[in-house]
Amino acid sequence: MNVLVVYAHPEPKSLNGSLKDFTLRHLERAGHTVQVSDLYAMNWKASLDANDSLERLSSERFYPSSESKHAFENGLQSEDIAREQDKLKWADAVIFQFPLWWFSMPALMKGWFERVYAYGLAYGVGEHSDARWGERYGEGRFAGKRAMLVVTTGGWESHYSARGINGPIDDLLFPIQHGMLYYPGFDVLPPFVVYRTGRIDDAKYAEVSEALGRRLDTLWTSAPIAFRAQNGGAYAIPALTLRDDLAAGQVGFAAHIARADEGVDEAAEEATEEVKQRAEANSSTMSIA
Amino acid sequence: MNVLVVYAHPEPKSLNGSLKDFTLRHLERAGHTVQVSDLYAMNWKASLDANDSLERLSSERFYPSSESKHAFENGLQSEDIAREQDKLKWADAVIFQFPLWWFSMPALMKGWFERVYAYGLAYGVGEHSDARWGERYGEGRFAGKRAMLVVTTGGWESHYSARGINGPIDDLLFPIQHGMLYYPGFDVLPPFVVYRTGRIDDAKYAEVSEALGRRLDTLWTSAPIAFRAQNGGAYAIPALTLRDDLAAGQVGFAAHIARADEGVDEAAEEATEEVKQRAEANSSTMSIA
Repeated sequence: MNVLVVYAHPEPKSLNGSLKDFTLRHLERAGHTVQVSDLYAMNWKASLDANDSLERLSSERFYPSSESKHAFENGLQSEDIAREQDKLKWADAVIFQFPLWWFSMPALMKGWFERVYAYGLAYGVGEHSDARWGERYGEGRFAGKRAMLVVTTGGWESHYSARGINGPIDDLLFPIQHGMLYYPGFDVLPPFVVYRTGRIDDAKYAEVSEALGRRLDTLWTSAPIAFRAQNGGAYAIPALTLRDDLAAGQVGFAAHIARADEGVDEAAEEATEEVKQRAEANSSTMSIA
Repeated sequence: MNVLVVYAHPEPKSLNGSLKDFTLRHLERAGHTVQVSDLYAMNWKASLDANDSLERLSSERFYPSSESKHAFENGLQSEDIAREQDKLKWADAVIFQFPLWWFSMPALMKGWFERVYAYGLAYGVGEHSDARWGERYGEGRFAGKRAMLVVTTGGWESHYSARGINGPIDDLLFPIQHGMLYYPGFDVLPPFVVYRTGRIDDAKYAEVSEALGRRLDTLWTSAPIAFRAQNGGAYAIPALTLRDDLAAGQVGFAAHIARADEGVDEAAEEATEEVKQRAEANSSTMSIA
């Protein structure tokens, strides 16, 4: 399989650098083909701006989304952006690896998403109707691909636990996993998180890399997070609020993950399956300018 | 009072640009002094890296936090960083204004936090003991200052409601409001959020700017979000998990906000007050190299 590793850390000799190298070796030994986007090494341009296209639709005023659409549709994107989109198209799975800085990804990686996620590729896909609100959250151009976060943090696991002061790690990662990965169609695997990075000695490193290896071995088989598909009947359209009988009375991010003990809603299941097939058909004919 | 506006949008003629200009005029008319950090106009460097200090502590390997500490303590920070820290020191309140891109702030602003928030200034402050885990979450160098987000988004308000598909806006902003603003000591005011920016005509703009004006008029008097102080007794040290009797049984971000109907815990209140006084004393003697 083809795996893209998008990676952001300024120091190759860091724990992150070692884990990234481990990932490459491990996947290649297992017979996979790997490409790496090492954003610091590439001197990736972080800021989305008017220089991201070769020719502006409007020179009067810069509208990020309409310029992105124009450039994407007409092969006018900056070359660094088009190259990353080609890697995404090629990949069967994408691993995003980064240190958690101020409770999110480094600016450089955020800028990768802002620039590479063009209108027509990652958003602004599909039609709006009474039954559908575009192709997103469970469908979209990346349907059929898998994504996984590999994250390191200096804090303790308890600080990121259900009642830990930093907030639960799953909630901190929700805007990324749900908002940036599930949104354009990825199946998102549970994250691999390394805590308390200041205390990683050789023994602990061996343990961490072994655990990461196991996750890489099951990249194709482990169950993705059960985020709810937008157009499968779970959400009212266009309000996009969760149906009252699903996670009844619950608010917050966790409500958007289906629980194993939830009764199966056959109509919604069918709609989701249909949506998924269409998404995969779209995905295979996708052409990136 | 002194107000710093940290602002990130690539187009001056955008809705964001207009609201930023409105904010400046409105605050100045009310007699306040305003400085703006217009990150796009400043061509702000987004990536935290080894060039952020004038002299490295170690040339062998780049450790972001120890290099930040060394540079901050010894007046060796890159000049653009030191200048922003001076503005923070000067400000009584800071407004962070940005469009919500992929459910967070633009990369350029994320890079502002990563680089300006030095070790010894925004983190790595205070001692660790059985009763305290550094000065953070309710104390820290910015104690006594206020902060507020001004955020625009293309999505509908219902999409960001308690059961909306994107997740509740308060939860999406928690990593910023709690993790990046409350952490180094800011009192964080409720955010000002503009939804459905594609549909802002003149009448709607008049309404939005009037509402923003009211928020600016009450910048000094409105109640901050009641995040719980770390060292006030609400959290076990060092696990930093919330005491069982507070928000009992609740998990997720909202548990870290005290509810109005919670019984007042006098011991915790006293500890918090003491913590606050010490923080404010620290803050007034703070010197930024």
